[in-house]
Amino acid sequence: MVQHQSVLDRSFAALADPTRRAILLRLGRSDASITELADRFEMTLTGLKKHVHVLENAGLVTTAKLGRVRHCSLGPRRLDEVTKWIASYQTLLEQRLDHLEAFLERTKGTP
Amino acid sequence: MVQHQSVLDRSFAALADPTRRAILLRLGRSDASITELADRFEMTLTGLKKHVHVLENAGLVTTAKLGRVRHCSLGPRRLDEVTKWIASYQTLLEQRLDHLEAFLERTKGTP
Repeated sequence: MVQHQSVLDRSFAALADPTRRAILLRLGRSDASITELADRFEMTLTGLKKHVHVLENAGLVTTAKLGRVRHCSLGPRRLDEVTKWIASYQTLLEQRLDHLEAFLERTKGTP
Repeated sequence: MVQHQSVLDRSFAALADPTRRAILLRLGRSDASITELADRFEMTLTGLKKHVHVLENAGLVTTAKLGRVRHCSLGPRRLDEVTKWIASYQTLLEQRLDHLEAFLERTKGTP
């Protein structure tokens, strides 16, 4: 199932959870180990790992094992695709508003 | 389950599907009936209604029944919360980059 989803699908799905968004914001400040994140968010290691796995699967987080500790950092995809999609949608809405304004301007004098 | 999710959770979850994103872009151009959308996306009415319901639940689409036809248009929430979250995340990343640059600048002369 998951492998058929696009990067955009996986990114939006990863962001649809408050803990996962909070993990991204935490890693935006500095890297952290799985244990540090679990402590910070008062979760079990298993629960935290599941969230990190979803973020990793979307390319938003990368993990690396150094000795016995698994370190997490922000991944190569820094919401680039998500930001692009949102921007193109907002542009579409602005164009629609411009067309509406132009129409109202044209018909202003019309009884 | 759904009623415990925040607007942000529901918005991101609604965007995690290519058909739902395409419906938003379609409605960004002009309003459309459920039947028109089902034809456009080659889906059954039932399948299309499910997607519209998810979008409506996130406040991204509104529907209104006029006679026997249900019309869909963009809802009151035009991804405002989503855009704000993304912007605050990007600001955090830029600040981190600025701190890194400042650090590199400070340590440039250091052997």
